[in-house]
Amino acid sequence: MSFEVKEKDLLGRIGKLKTKSGTIETPLLFPVINPSVQPVLPQRLKDVFGFEAVITNAYILKKRYQNKPIEEGLHKFLKFNGATMTDSGAYQILVYGDVEYNQKEIVAYEESIGTDIATILDIPTGWRVTKEQAEITVAETHRRAKEFFNLKTRKDMLWVGPVQGGKHLDLVADSAKEMGSLPFDIHALGSPTEVMENYRYDVLAEMILTAKKGIPIERPLHLFGAGHPSMFAIAVSLGCDLFDSAAYALYAREGRYMTENGTWRIQEMDYFPCTCPNCTSETPKSLMTKSAKERTVFLAEHNLWACISELKRIKQAIRDGRLWELTEMRAHAHPALLSALKRVKNHKDFLETFNPSIKNSGFFYFNPEGLARPEITHYKNRLLNRYTPPTNAKALLLLPQTRNKPFHKSPEMKKIRQLLRTIGSNYAEQIHIAVFCAPFGIVPLELDEIYPLSQHETARPFDRETIEYIAEQTTAYIKQMPYNSVTILNDQKLWNKHITIAAKDACTEKGIMFEAIEANKEESNKQLITNLKAALLKQLSN
Amino acid sequence: MSFEVKEKDLLGRIGKLKTKSGTIETPLLFPVINPSVQPVLPQRLKDVFGFEAVITNAYILKKRYQNKPIEEGLHKFLKFNGATMTDSGAYQILVYGDVEYNQKEIVAYEESIGTDIATILDIPTGWRVTKEQAEITVAETHRRAKEFFNLKTRKDMLWVGPVQGGKHLDLVADSAKEMGSLPFDIHALGSPTEVMENYRYDVLAEMILTAKKGIPIERPLHLFGAGHPSMFAIAVSLGCDLFDSAAYALYAREGRYMTENGTWRIQEMDYFPCTCPNCTSETPKSLMTKSAKERTVFLAEHNLWACISELKRIKQAIRDGRLWELTEMRAHAHPALLSALKRVKNHKDFLETFNPSIKNSGFFYFNPEGLARPEITHYKNRLLNRYTPPTNAKALLLLPQTRNKPFHKSPEMKKIRQLLRTIGSNYAEQIHIAVFCAPFGIVPLELDEIYPLSQHETARPFDRETIEYIAEQTTAYIKQMPYNSVTILNDQKLWNKHITIAAKDACTEKGIMFEAIEANKEESNKQLITNLKAALLKQLSN
Repeated sequence: MSFEVKEKDLLGRIGKLKTKSGTIETPLLFPVINPSVQPVLPQRLKDVFGFEAVITNAYILKKRYQNKPIEEGLHKFLKFNGATMTDSGAYQILVYGDVEYNQKEIVAYEESIGTDIATILDIPTGWRVTKEQAEITVAETHRRAKEFFNLKTRKDMLWVGPVQGGKHLDLVADSAKEMGSLPFDIHALGSPTEVMENYRYDVLAEMILTAKKGIPIERPLHLFGAGHPSMFAIAVSLGCDLFDSAAYALYAREGRYMTENGTWRIQEMDYFPCTCPNCTSETPKSLMTKSAKERTVFLAEHNLWACISELKRIKQAIRDGRLWELTEMRAHAHPALLSALKRVKNHKDFLETFNPSIKNSGFFYFNPEGLARPEITHYKNRLLNRYTPPTNAKALLLLPQTRNKPFHKSPEMKKIRQLLRTIGSNYAEQIHIAVFCAPFGIVPLELDEIYPLSQHETARPFDRETIEYIAEQTTAYIKQMPYNSVTILNDQKLWNKHITIAAKDACTEKGIMFEAIEANKEESNKQLITNLKAALLKQLSN
Repeated sequence: MSFEVKEKDLLGRIGKLKTKSGTIETPLLFPVINPSVQPVLPQRLKDVFGFEAVITNAYILKKRYQNKPIEEGLHKFLKFNGATMTDSGAYQILVYGDVEYNQKEIVAYEESIGTDIATILDIPTGWRVTKEQAEITVAETHRRAKEFFNLKTRKDMLWVGPVQGGKHLDLVADSAKEMGSLPFDIHALGSPTEVMENYRYDVLAEMILTAKKGIPIERPLHLFGAGHPSMFAIAVSLGCDLFDSAAYALYAREGRYMTENGTWRIQEMDYFPCTCPNCTSETPKSLMTKSAKERTVFLAEHNLWACISELKRIKQAIRDGRLWELTEMRAHAHPALLSALKRVKNHKDFLETFNPSIKNSGFFYFNPEGLARPEITHYKNRLLNRYTPPTNAKALLLLPQTRNKPFHKSPEMKKIRQLLRTIGSNYAEQIHIAVFCAPFGIVPLELDEIYPLSQHETARPFDRETIEYIAEQTTAYIKQMPYNSVTILNDQKLWNKHITIAAKDACTEKGIMFEAIEANKEESNKQLITNLKAALLKQLSN
């Protein structure tokens, strides 16, 4: 196996990909090398910036340089001693309709120049195509993929099998399944460029996740043409391991300055919001006095720094188990990225399947997008499918979450325990305490130290959708568990009446007793405890 | 006037503060200099990192170095040729209860060492204090402030008048008003350190905004002890211009690595997510092989890079009119920061008063926190207080927002215009078209090019709270404007039935005709247009 996963979080992972020119660490961006116009020398990409691999286009090499890359070998031709990848001309098919060579010629060329990672000559689906057209591209890509395995002669190269289908997700699913059944080393999501150009990151997210479900999870997934650092985090979260892009150079030529949070035109900048060696040695003003060529090199290098540092942030986040937090932050760089993150909830069970369930990091909850997080799905499933309350638990006492965590150590819970002592052990034994808490739902008190139930922080006040989720969980819990009665102490300031209503409705439906004590500013804590005691006694003596 | 505002956005601003040692640009962080343990030489702070000013503690200088700083002058004593600020020992009063010198002695010392920006010896309120205790600190601070103006002899220094009151906002308001009535050059929010240590950024936000409302807007506001780059954006948005902190050095000594998104312990790091000169020359692993002292210097310098680059990002964001977007992104570094941002809605009218109403930047809308943005408040006020529909407009036709902007140029609107042509000009003239759109509400079609009505991007699907806001705006608009009828074409996928219900209820209350056409997937566009035409004709012929 050429790919080994070292750490994972969400569908993202830090992996080691073994190539014949050395092992490279993923997630990884392959900067595109254009041998005829290259603002940053390939070897500098590795030595100065730390890019362990580059990509170039085998079709263009063959057309423009013919035998020279064969004679020199690709690495010497590019003057690059790391890993090399070649694209096949498929993108040119998308743009120009056809290319001058057939797959047999391209595959033979890729083998003869000795690239480390090569791509078959697939047929990209594109963006504004009908389902019928899309079906043709998927079928032809699959036909070529099967043909390829008869053309291939070398065993030391890694081969990429692109998944096509475009925005037609059922076709993407078919394509992923078919391509995934063939012995490719790596898969790629075909031509997302136009989807990204149209800022339809929501569609891209669905495409990636659909592809991901079809291909073997242990193979790396490459996202073609993705080179803006603002979208690396979400792409990695959804399971992309490899990226390639010429954006660093193309943007530089147009005077555009990339950051993990968006792009600036250099003329609009008064300050460089970056500490890279370039940005700490010039100001936007001083840069404008330089030649156009110097400016392009300056910007290409800055853009590369922006890309590599974002990849490091992502790797550190995976290692920390905080990739969601990083991704949610980055999703606030552009509404189209947040729209993409909002789609994750359609796939939350898939995410939950592969996500490590125990981490050592704090869990930060901000907005309802976070309800798609695997920790929340995991907890919900465990609670409703595997948990049963203690056998003598007849009366459920629902309490609002406390600021202190774990809840059972909070000062509020101390008062509740005092109350239970005054109620008599016969009754007290029958009372089961659970806390309702954003964003997890119902937490039986004896579970409150399980990760991440006491290792989370939630922004306040809670938003409507989160409160509704907690209300739904409350309903589901009460309906399922064998209590005879439910008493709720509600904190209206945080929850309004939503949880109380949900609990009441569930009790009514189930035909069990229900009492609600509403905490509000007017009433003293002492009075609350008295009311709570009366409610519990009423239920237990019934 | 020593302070001149160059650019502004929200309550943040880029300003020039004139001191006797030169003009410094705000927002600005004064790194705290501890003359006895200083990991980075003061002059390097300016020459290498670009910090134009530093702060030190006059009380500690007097106690420890007595006459030496007087003889040498503060600048020579610190070996720093930029602007200098001195704190007065007030923080030591908070920590130790009292200090060895009185205000007269401290003020005389500050004058004799020739600091550029000096602080009176106020009495910090602190965090866990009763209202009675807090009142005493506010009253004593005010007494000392008035006394100070009799003690002061030099005219070339800038003086800081701290606002006290702690979490008791009514006291903060009183203190701000009283201190603001005295001729200070600069104000400061007293001792927020404990509030920040307890992660009560929500309380801090209320404190800052309350102080800001009381002091003259043209004076800079200093936030004492704020030195973490993750909170600079929100603090600047709320009107803080100056910061000071020893955190860069204290964190470094504890092996903590600051970023604009949070803090890491150096032992937990596999990657440096930063491109500063330090982080591009070492790895976390290589750093661990160095001496403790070298590590401290490395981290202190990295922390300074993290601070200065965040200040540049903030300044660029102010210049771009995108400070909200930066702040909302940063608020996703910690739930406590988002909790603070959620408080802004309590002060949205205040924000609106000072925010420039026209910008040249796109407006990005993500989550309901954004409803507090001044552009939204501004538009709502203008629409409801100053707008009247065309005089012949009898029938309001409400249409859902289109993906294309401006709305009137969208393909959907072209179809509506075609429909109006078939309806006869007599009727068509009486129809007034408006769009319901997140996050602004009702947009009469003739206004749809006003900033930012066609320069915004909104994440989809819309969240519940945003939809409810649009529903409220729909109700308010219908109730106020003199239409005889309302027809709504609803896009259920985006809006569910919320806007339709709001419009219907408003019409019922007002006693005017109402028709709703629900767009859903089953119906063809042609059928929709036919239904819409029928509905309009029914209303107009009535």
